[in-house]
Amino acid sequence: MFIEVYPTAQSVKDLNGKTAIVIDVLRATSVITTALHNGAERVIPVPSVEDAFRLARDLKGNSLLGGERRALKIPGFDLGNSPLEYKKELVEGKTVILTTSNGTKAIKASESAEHILIGCFLNASAAAGKALQTLSSETTGVAVLCAGTLGEFSLDDAACAGLIVDILVRNIKRINEIPELSDLAFACRDLYLEHRHDLKTFISHAAHYKRLLDLGLEKDIDYCLQQDVLDCVPVYEKKNMAVKIY
Amino acid sequence: MFIEVYPTAQSVKDLNGKTAIVIDVLRATSVITTALHNGAERVIPVPSVEDAFRLARDLKGNSLLGGERRALKIPGFDLGNSPLEYKKELVEGKTVILTTSNGTKAIKASESAEHILIGCFLNASAAAGKALQTLSSETTGVAVLCAGTLGEFSLDDAACAGLIVDILVRNIKRINEIPELSDLAFACRDLYLEHRHDLKTFISHAAHYKRLLDLGLEKDIDYCLQQDVLDCVPVYEKKNMAVKIY
Repeated sequence: MFIEVYPTAQSVKDLNGKTAIVIDVLRATSVITTALHNGAERVIPVPSVEDAFRLARDLKGNSLLGGERRALKIPGFDLGNSPLEYKKELVEGKTVILTTSNGTKAIKASESAEHILIGCFLNASAAAGKALQTLSSETTGVAVLCAGTLGEFSLDDAACAGLIVDILVRNIKRINEIPELSDLAFACRDLYLEHRHDLKTFISHAAHYKRLLDLGLEKDIDYCLQQDVLDCVPVYEKKNMAVKIY
Repeated sequence: MFIEVYPTAQSVKDLNGKTAIVIDVLRATSVITTALHNGAERVIPVPSVEDAFRLARDLKGNSLLGGERRALKIPGFDLGNSPLEYKKELVEGKTVILTTSNGTKAIKASESAEHILIGCFLNASAAAGKALQTLSSETTGVAVLCAGTLGEFSLDDAACAGLIVDILVRNIKRINEIPELSDLAFACRDLYLEHRHDLKTFISHAAHYKRLLDLGLEKDIDYCLQQDVLDCVPVYEKKNMAVKIY
């Protein structure tokens, strides 16, 4: 089975027949996974701030506006892009309308895929497991899609992609199939395996990490780097343009 | 000083004010460096087979047509894309017109850079040294541009980029300046440092390596993975659209 990794939303090609796992560790896919785990009914990713306000108006209440630009909360929005804000008492039963700089764009970029799953460190094993469940005779492999940061490769996403590739490889070998890795999938797995015992130090070299640290968001980083603490796997349904847990 | 790495020709952004080092280890930049080392007067990279034939006709003799499509010699061309073919007795004093799938495209993609150097394992230290010489108050850093393979990240180029980044970092620290690395520059350096004692095994996981091996081109690979055996640094001059040693 072929496993590939894309470094940025902008680099994604045709994902026809593939299962995509979209990753934006810091922080969009960590936010989506947390919000749905805490009972949000659905998350609707939208590309622009204008789209977000328009949709909130159309939905007439019961929705929350969340997201960021330049890592900061958007004026007039209910929530920023910190997963710690998406608490049960706030999000339960609600529709979250989310617009972020990288993650929501990556979800849109994956729309040619057969299945679109949302992954992060928080749910890495669950996401990899669900990806394998979606595979059938019609699907040709798994594409792990890193959101990156403003069109650039990002170490945090690469490390998480490496972890997910590693879990996929181990599970595929267990059923006596042969995993085949793209060059970037091999490199990300290699980086993950080398640094798995101190991922925070490795990821501290990321430009985006430094930006979040400068903004005083270390608690967000520590939360997002926790591995396998949530077992839900958000799924993006193209028909409804929404992310839900099914 | 800022050092960045681009994974593919297609991913390159504006390189205004930067010195670019273009890498296509297997095999275009190894071919260019070898041909010029062996006395070729210049190498003119062109995008298409048609362009190559047209230019050869315009130049009326004294030129050699070289390059590949799908790693194979192009019908009617004098030379393929094996550096071992570019011997002194064949290339000395000649203009080589070169068209390849990835490398010549990467050179074209770097045209917004202030200076464009050609790098590979064969001349890594020389290329890094020359890049540092080009820096002035008007230049903002070095961009290492991997050609990649058909629009995809390639492990051979990534390892060579990592080596060149490592040499740059060590030289910059020696003059008491602070190197700043993009996320991908950090990752490539990390991969290189981890695997430097057995680069061939690391690079054997590259899809492009396997393709060359299947075509019986292991001698090419072994030649291209030799480090610092040539001290010439080919420079692409936009004005003349040619690569030369100055």
